[in-house]
Amino acid sequence: MLDTITSPTLLIDEQICRNNIARMAAKAKKHGMELIPHMKTAQSHIVGDWARKYGIREITVSSLKMASYFSTKSWDIIHIAFPFNPREIHVFNELASQQKLSIQLVNPTVTTIVADNLTTAAGFFIEIDAGYGRTGVPYEQTALIDEILTAAKKNPLLSFRGFYIHPGHSYYTKDIVGIYKESRHALALLKSQYISKYPNLKTRIGDTPGCSLMDDFGDIDQMGPGNFMFYDVTQARIGSCNLADIAVALAVPVVDIQVEKGEILVHGGGVHLSKDVLFEQDGSKNFGEVVYLQEGVAWEVPQQRSYVKSVSQEHGIIKASPELLQGVQIGDLLGILPIHSCMTADCMKSYYTLNGQLLDHAEGMAI
Amino acid sequence: MLDTITSPTLLIDEQICRNNIARMAAKAKKHGMELIPHMKTAQSHIVGDWARKYGIREITVSSLKMASYFSTKSWDIIHIAFPFNPREIHVFNELASQQKLSIQLVNPTVTTIVADNLTTAAGFFIEIDAGYGRTGVPYEQTALIDEILTAAKKNPLLSFRGFYIHPGHSYYTKDIVGIYKESRHALALLKSQYISKYPNLKTRIGDTPGCSLMDDFGDIDQMGPGNFMFYDVTQARIGSCNLADIAVALAVPVVDIQVEKGEILVHGGGVHLSKDVLFEQDGSKNFGEVVYLQEGVAWEVPQQRSYVKSVSQEHGIIKASPELLQGVQIGDLLGILPIHSCMTADCMKSYYTLNGQLLDHAEGMAI
Repeated sequence: MLDTITSPTLLIDEQICRNNIARMAAKAKKHGMELIPHMKTAQSHIVGDWARKYGIREITVSSLKMASYFSTKSWDIIHIAFPFNPREIHVFNELASQQKLSIQLVNPTVTTIVADNLTTAAGFFIEIDAGYGRTGVPYEQTALIDEILTAAKKNPLLSFRGFYIHPGHSYYTKDIVGIYKESRHALALLKSQYISKYPNLKTRIGDTPGCSLMDDFGDIDQMGPGNFMFYDVTQARIGSCNLADIAVALAVPVVDIQVEKGEILVHGGGVHLSKDVLFEQDGSKNFGEVVYLQEGVAWEVPQQRSYVKSVSQEHGIIKASPELLQGVQIGDLLGILPIHSCMTADCMKSYYTLNGQLLDHAEGMAI
Repeated sequence: MLDTITSPTLLIDEQICRNNIARMAAKAKKHGMELIPHMKTAQSHIVGDWARKYGIREITVSSLKMASYFSTKSWDIIHIAFPFNPREIHVFNELASQQKLSIQLVNPTVTTIVADNLTTAAGFFIEIDAGYGRTGVPYEQTALIDEILTAAKKNPLLSFRGFYIHPGHSYYTKDIVGIYKESRHALALLKSQYISKYPNLKTRIGDTPGCSLMDDFGDIDQMGPGNFMFYDVTQARIGSCNLADIAVALAVPVVDIQVEKGEILVHGGGVHLSKDVLFEQDGSKNFGEVVYLQEGVAWEVPQQRSYVKSVSQEHGIIKASPELLQGVQIGDLLGILPIHSCMTADCMKSYYTLNGQLLDHAEGMAI
């Protein structure tokens, strides 16, 4: 299969991906939680089918377009975990008439627009901010939560499903336990306050580092991580996974080798990997870790590390280990484990399995 | 037209873009140079058509896929300004049988593969490194240049066109004059050494900052900038252009406003803008500058700056000026001038003109 690859191509190791899903499904079960995976990373019907094997019936997406892509595949519900964009209300109504959807609300203004214009039944979560600061209602602002709930009541088609937290700051800290304490506390408090009025309400938490590393979810009902399906070098750094758990690698052709500089030039740059970056201890940049590709078998994470030290639009320059430099030839293919697999998958828009099956990915952003 | 936009959409101001092309064409003419624009930024047939008005007959691209996209539009030659990837030789032969192409060579190994396998006439440039360090033959290594030329001679279909320098380090320095002195010197030296054997050889230089700012190109024959067609916030910072010269802006819907924090949440994140980033003087990140969109007329660069301080996959958070905070409403559209327009255009894969015409963009990276 590798022989047929002539230009940058995103490979997926189906077995690693299935293992990642199986592990998270088992963990959710162990904690009595429901796993509602976020499909923003994979954005692929076939990966969705793999998840179905573990009883997944509801999925999460991050845009109406992504919901539209998944709507043809008979998911029970698709939750759009992004503060509802009121300009999309009419497109939303159209899709909601064909596919059960739920949305996320963070303010009374949008809630009122939705309540005034919704024509098909839809659920909603209120997104809560428990310290991340990106979006959501600060959990102590129950007056604001009440305003949203009151505005929503104007339309009986709109039903409250519960509270959602994405503690995205878990990506940037070693204190995931601390973050989880805060998030658990916020969700537990809100549940206790609102459960009598809304006996079916659920609490949901959504980050891969926490869902991978934590072992105390308190009484949180549901988990909604996404990146865990593929993982990436960022998650390996945090400790959410090992490099061997990363399910995607960009195959890149070697076009030049500079032995004295210890560098390899590959076709594979920012338009393929994205510009997401980590830093090495010496301050140098890392745009992806090299793995060795082998025909018909899984790629190998080498003992001696090599990594992409710089990218431009189409170019990648690898800082190569002595071992790699000794073995590599112009015309070879190398694998690059992405720094941020969600972004790389979104750049590449398709996958090849190790036995050459093409998997689709949701379309580009064009209207 | 703005009323019809419901989700992130890349707008192009045709007049600004045409002005940018006209200005660079005039500059090339003034210096007796030929303008061979790099289409990696626009990646669009219609923008290519705009360029034709200025006598452009040859264009540059950065991949065989992009060459394939442009091959249907009767350009005299398409130059692929990326070190030739030997795995693509057969696909190359196929395309070269329909469209005159030229390639870039940086080592004898690939040159030999090309010479051994090329079945249709093609030109080549030798890429020279005059200090950027990304790729190319260091200009003083004439023995290596001779090896490439000797290897190429084995196949009479392969014809030497000249020397190409992309001084990409001009993006990261204030010393563009110094970089140009070096590049001019390298190209002049090589021309004087090889012109007797190759009387038709041309020298070409390819960066937007230099082509925008310099006024002394020595005896360099051709210029091949690309970004100048759109420019972006990075180029404005370098001084290559003003913010008012930037020809593309991402229209993003406002979904939440945090007045106390001075922040606006928009639908528009890393999958739309890319993760390219600049830094403010206080060390904070900048993923794009806000402009005010107005129906039917050009966008307005505000006096009081607002900018995107953080992005995740779909979210953007704007640090808003008092003026913006006072005027903005949930459901509004704002414009974001990209930090790196090549990457944003590649993420978005289409454009809308201010009067609602859809412009295409080369397809995704999938095979």
